[in-house]
Amino acid sequence: MTTTTTNPTLRTAVAGVTGYAGAELARLLLLHPRLRETPPMFLGRMLPEGEGTTIALTSLHPQLSGLPHADDLSVTPFDWEQLQREGVEILFLATPHEQAREWAPQALAHNIRVIDLSAAWRLQHDANRAIYKLTDADPAAAQALQREAVYGSPELHGPAIAAARLVANPGCYATSIILGLAPLLRANLIDLTFGVVADAKSGVSGAGKTPTANTHFMYAADNLSAYAVFGHRHTGEILEQLHLTNAQLQFTPHLLPIPRGILSTIYVRLNQAASLVDIQNCFFDFYVASPMVRVRRSPLLPQIQHVVRTSFCDIGFQLSPDGKKLVIVSCLDNLLKGASSQAIQNMNLMAGWHESEGLI
Amino acid sequence: MTTTTTNPTLRTAVAGVTGYAGAELARLLLLHPRLRETPPMFLGRMLPEGEGTTIALTSLHPQLSGLPHADDLSVTPFDWEQLQREGVEILFLATPHEQAREWAPQALAHNIRVIDLSAAWRLQHDANRAIYKLTDADPAAAQALQREAVYGSPELHGPAIAAARLVANPGCYATSIILGLAPLLRANLIDLTFGVVADAKSGVSGAGKTPTANTHFMYAADNLSAYAVFGHRHTGEILEQLHLTNAQLQFTPHLLPIPRGILSTIYVRLNQAASLVDIQNCFFDFYVASPMVRVRRSPLLPQIQHVVRTSFCDIGFQLSPDGKKLVIVSCLDNLLKGASSQAIQNMNLMAGWHESEGLI
Amino acid sequence: MTTTTTNPTLRTAVAGVTGYAGAELARLLLLHPRLRETPPMFLGRMLPEGEGTTIALTSLHPQLSGLPHADDLSVTPFDWEQLQREGVEILFLATPHEQAREWAPQALAHNIRVIDLSAAWRLQHDANRAIYKLTDADPAAAQALQREAVYGSPELHGPAIAAARLVANPGCYATSIILGLAPLLRANLIDLTFGVVADAKSGVSGAGKTPTANTHFMYAADNLSAYAVFGHRHTGEILEQLHLTNAQLQFTPHLLPIPRGILSTIYVRLNQAASLVDIQNCFFDFYVASPMVRVRRSPLLPQIQHVVRTSFCDIGFQLSPDGKKLVIVSCLDNLLKGASSQAIQNMNLMAGWHESEGLI
Amino acid sequence: MTTTTTNPTLRTAVAGVTGYAGAELARLLLLHPRLRETPPMFLGRMLPEGEGTTIALTSLHPQLSGLPHADDLSVTPFDWEQLQREGVEILFLATPHEQAREWAPQALAHNIRVIDLSAAWRLQHDANRAIYKLTDADPAAAQALQREAVYGSPELHGPAIAAARLVANPGCYATSIILGLAPLLRANLIDLTFGVVADAKSGVSGAGKTPTANTHFMYAADNLSAYAVFGHRHTGEILEQLHLTNAQLQFTPHLLPIPRGILSTIYVRLNQAASLVDIQNCFFDFYVASPMVRVRRSPLLPQIQHVVRTSFCDIGFQLSPDGKKLVIVSCLDNLLKGASSQAIQNMNLMAGWHESEGLI
Repeated sequence: MTTTTTNPTLRTAVAGVTGYAGAELARLLLLHPRLRETPPMFLGRMLPEGEGTTIALTSLHPQLSGLPHADDLSVTPFDWEQLQREGVEILFLATPHEQAREWAPQALAHNIRVIDLSAAWRLQHDANRAIYKLTDADPAAAQALQREAVYGSPELHGPAIAAARLVANPGCYATSIILGLAPLLRANLIDLTFGVVADAKSGVSGAGKTPTANTHFMYAADNLSAYAVFGHRHTGEILEQLHLTNAQLQFTPHLLPIPRGILSTIYVRLNQAASLVDIQNCFFDFYVASPMVRVRRSPLLPQIQHVVRTSFCDIGFQLSPDGKKLVIVSCLDNLLKGASSQAIQNMNLMAGWHESEGLI
Repeated sequence: MTTTTTNPTLRTAVAGVTGYAGAELARLLLLHPRLRETPPMFLGRMLPEGEGTTIALTSLHPQLSGLPHADDLSVTPFDWEQLQREGVEILFLATPHEQAREWAPQALAHNIRVIDLSAAWRLQHDANRAIYKLTDADPAAAQALQREAVYGSPELHGPAIAAARLVANPGCYATSIILGLAPLLRANLIDLTFGVVADAKSGVSGAGKTPTANTHFMYAADNLSAYAVFGHRHTGEILEQLHLTNAQLQFTPHLLPIPRGILSTIYVRLNQAASLVDIQNCFFDFYVASPMVRVRRSPLLPQIQHVVRTSFCDIGFQLSPDGKKLVIVSCLDNLLKGASSQAIQNMNLMAGWHESEGLI
Repeated sequence: MTTTTTNPTLRTAVAGVTGYAGAELARLLLLHPRLRETPPMFLGRMLPEGEGTTIALTSLHPQLSGLPHADDLSVTPFDWEQLQREGVEILFLATPHEQAREWAPQALAHNIRVIDLSAAWRLQHDANRAIYKLTDADPAAAQALQREAVYGSPELHGPAIAAARLVANPGCYATSIILGLAPLLRANLIDLTFGVVADAKSGVSGAGKTPTANTHFMYAADNLSAYAVFGHRHTGEILEQLHLTNAQLQFTPHLLPIPRGILSTIYVRLNQAASLVDIQNCFFDFYVASPMVRVRRSPLLPQIQHVVRTSFCDIGFQLSPDGKKLVIVSCLDNLLKGASSQAIQNMNLMAGWHESEGLI
Repeated sequence: MTTTTTNPTLRTAVAGVTGYAGAELARLLLLHPRLRETPPMFLGRMLPEGEGTTIALTSLHPQLSGLPHADDLSVTPFDWEQLQREGVEILFLATPHEQAREWAPQALAHNIRVIDLSAAWRLQHDANRAIYKLTDADPAAAQALQREAVYGSPELHGPAIAAARLVANPGCYATSIILGLAPLLRANLIDLTFGVVADAKSGVSGAGKTPTANTHFMYAADNLSAYAVFGHRHTGEILEQLHLTNAQLQFTPHLLPIPRGILSTIYVRLNQAASLVDIQNCFFDFYVASPMVRVRRSPLLPQIQHVVRTSFCDIGFQLSPDGKKLVIVSCLDNLLKGASSQAIQNMNLMAGWHESEGLI
């Protein structure tokens, strides 16, 4: 089950295909070259196990019509037995985190590996996880599984992901900030007495599909607003993955008046003056084997348009004249590298395929 | 009560200030030069008569803070006795149409004139009004009041509005199409055997403040969609005001990915070949005394940017080389000339003031 | 040269890769499964033959970085001899129409087939072509070539395209309107005494990459404007392909405040009352073998979001209650089905491949 | 000339009305209650002195049609003698900074006070001014005038502005950052060893009306990009007005995909732990007599929609749980409080009128 031998194909299933990340995941799976003969099963997030109605995939997402298999597929009620009957090997959970917390151990019990796009299994520290108000039927088992879960950042944990039974797919803000800082922190270049300021901006799809006052077009359009200042839920992921303390990180998310895309502007001070080439080389070395990260050469800075509807994370820099202050700009599509394409990247690793298959 | 003698000022009240049109109405009233000493009363749409809580106006609409009186005003529960005690002379109803259908006769019974921004009283023909599913406690009285109600298009019914007790403020699409066609139809220039095609496009605020799937930023942004083809509720108003039959009008509304503004592109054939100057003069003559309509000289065509956040309706034209086919472009801000500023224009007429006071 | 035998791969070149359609064409060619081993050559539009500098493809279009071959490719000066040396079989012209008028015969003289994305060769009637102010060094030869040129609408002229030496890739507005009307006109269902009204709306990319007053963000954003009323250049294509007279068509384009996408709302009267099923069947039959057209079942209407960043044209309908008036909604991405993906579709046909390869 | 006695009205002129700030200035002046009888003169920026043609104001800005005097006014060639003949008392310069550097002393020589919306006279230190590459015909006189020029921030320099002959109207980014920091710095609450990070985001109108690659709709829409990192021209203003060193400030501007509005997110550490009430009181006290600054009470944070098309600057805060780290959010409309309405505010002070006349 945890082998990394190359598989010719794979049987997959997606629970929760109604949302934005779910729709992108469906599109990527339908178009994945290894899955052309074995389309994924789609399972309704809202349908209680054992009952409910079936709906055509293209009724839910008319934009998918015409894609391979799309017009023949349905979203069916969730049913573990059917998953097993169909020989599903990997289950994507694009459900609310409460659901994912409950279903992941059940999937493993049915010998199905899990890629969880929710936040349910990302955090090792109870204090960080508290914000999600998760409850566990069997706390001891959950704790053990939590320790086993691998944070699904292929650039940081590739080999562990390849062997994992449960991959916790990272948050969108977290991915952009972690990838923008990890090489510098690993190389010990940042003066942490000054801390890190991460000013991040995200398109509206990050707020989910449920209509609310803040996702109303009239609220979001022609606007910009900061929110969850000092309290965003992704903070814990960033701290844990980068080994930072809460005091060292200032992270402010903003809601951009665009559908998709995240741009994080990250401010740090260096331990000692560096050149732009030093910084770039640090990143080039770190991501040399990472096809989904594009390190940009100054003066080219990432911008949201370059990454939207792609599976890349773009990273660029600008250095102060004295070589001591560094601004890092990190960009990605929150629904792709910030969610669904990163999940596919993890699936590729778990199947022993090349990391970027179906993503470029 | 129905006198048109000039009043130095006026005591007004607004029921239903939570929505977009309500907020614009509040802004226009607070800034109206005749009302600087007598700010309007604001009454909650949702609060049942006789109970409920009071909320600061600027809690509801922080953008109004700093305007005259705004920070001192509250939205209070609706109460007829308090309206009378305060000497309210004109009540704006920015409520759902069911509410307006019920409240308008009650207001008149309390000697308060009404400007109703809903569709409750716009339509004389039962068949046209059926789409709103209105019910009347006293059908005979309602029918009599319906006949008395004046359609609040100042450019068409100015004197009647000045004397009216109940003004039915027009719909936004209807205003743009009626003002674009009335001069030509009155002058009998249009060949109605070919009918009229009105292809109209509106910003999202026209869909109201309640968050729905179709007002979600992710649905509306970067999109365009036709809706209510052959079945939009404003059709009846257009037919009644322009004396057209249903067979003669084809009206298709579209949802534009912008907050505000309507542009209607109207296609007609002329009874006989005309010059652009003929057409323009027909419009200039018709609107010579109408300060809120700007007739544009070809080749300048109206565009949404010219009218957004203004109280004007802009109208322009283009004629086919043979002088027989005419395209009329009519533009306005759906929340202003399509709703709130037209209501103020009606208030001005009812108070004996200049039509454009507080609007330019 | 004009064989339709299946080729394993193909050597292609693109002249004019700087614009928006050029960039999309580059992306589609780089990702085309048949061209993975034979990436296209890219030739600068602006560089005079025989001189000029070379620039990295990803300097011009940083968003293409990471795609197969992209980081190794350059845009080189245009040179017929090099094209021959490299064995180029199909040349895409994404140049201004004057250039394409001049280069197409030269390409054929070098035994290179041409897919021209400009308007240079689309129009058979001199009167329709006059608007482009084209001049020919050898008018007789140009006229002969004009007669040979095939209008590149795969749904209308598939077999002719497969055998063609010169394919004139259709205009974006024209594609949406032609595909929305062709089935009904072929079936003789439309009462042409009433004519056809096509109210079309396009995103800003249709206006090209050169910065102008009308492509400035401040002009286009939050705006809608009609333009070229009674005089748009695509009119001739629509008339020729649909065999309509100028008197029968009223076509008004509008500039939408979005990057990409066209939605055309088309108004016709039917010769006799029909049912929605009749209409849908007419379209389903016509497009039964056309993978890039998605005919929608009422009440689902096409919308721009469903087609943007796809190679599909979506078509849907609404019928008046009396079955006599029909509204057709036709939607596509102006840079894809309205330009570059249609060019790829034509290339697929010319190479004997499946029409949709590399497009779904 | 420099008296602050209340004037019943004022004769004004605007040089450079073609741009976005110029159009807003024109609108504000036409609607200013004190200027209803004395409309401003409009002078073309591009027309050489003594020659040139005259153009109707509403040809340049059709959206102004219908406003008081607007349809009767022209933009005429610049001519000092005419300015004097007409008795102009205050001249607004909405011209490029080179022009404003040259014209300001000439205006004073003609006994005309100046409000300069360009950057020509904002900076006292040559090093900060160097970025604008200004040259002076008479360097000594220019230096003297530079020392006399008053930085036109009414909240900081009200009395000096009232008496000034030359007011240097602040930059848009600078205004938002200065107003967000001044109260805290004056009260010595900020620990400057950590410096200040100002992450600012502006709508596209800030980039000016000239069409460029970066103001093209296709570049700006659905995008976000950082620019001028460590090198924006407004840095000098911020440093001078706040008495900061270059090492203490990190300011990164971003281009937002919206027409108007600036939001600055400012990160500081406090000298000692404070409560939100302490911080708010610091701001309330500082701005108690400033009608154009709205200090928001937590948890309400400013957002761009609240200030767009208003003359307000909104400021709000969020404090870390330990009371040591503070995020300040400062918002304004870059064309109004960031340019034209601030100029009107300065005019009001110079005329002895209430600061907010014509702005609320």
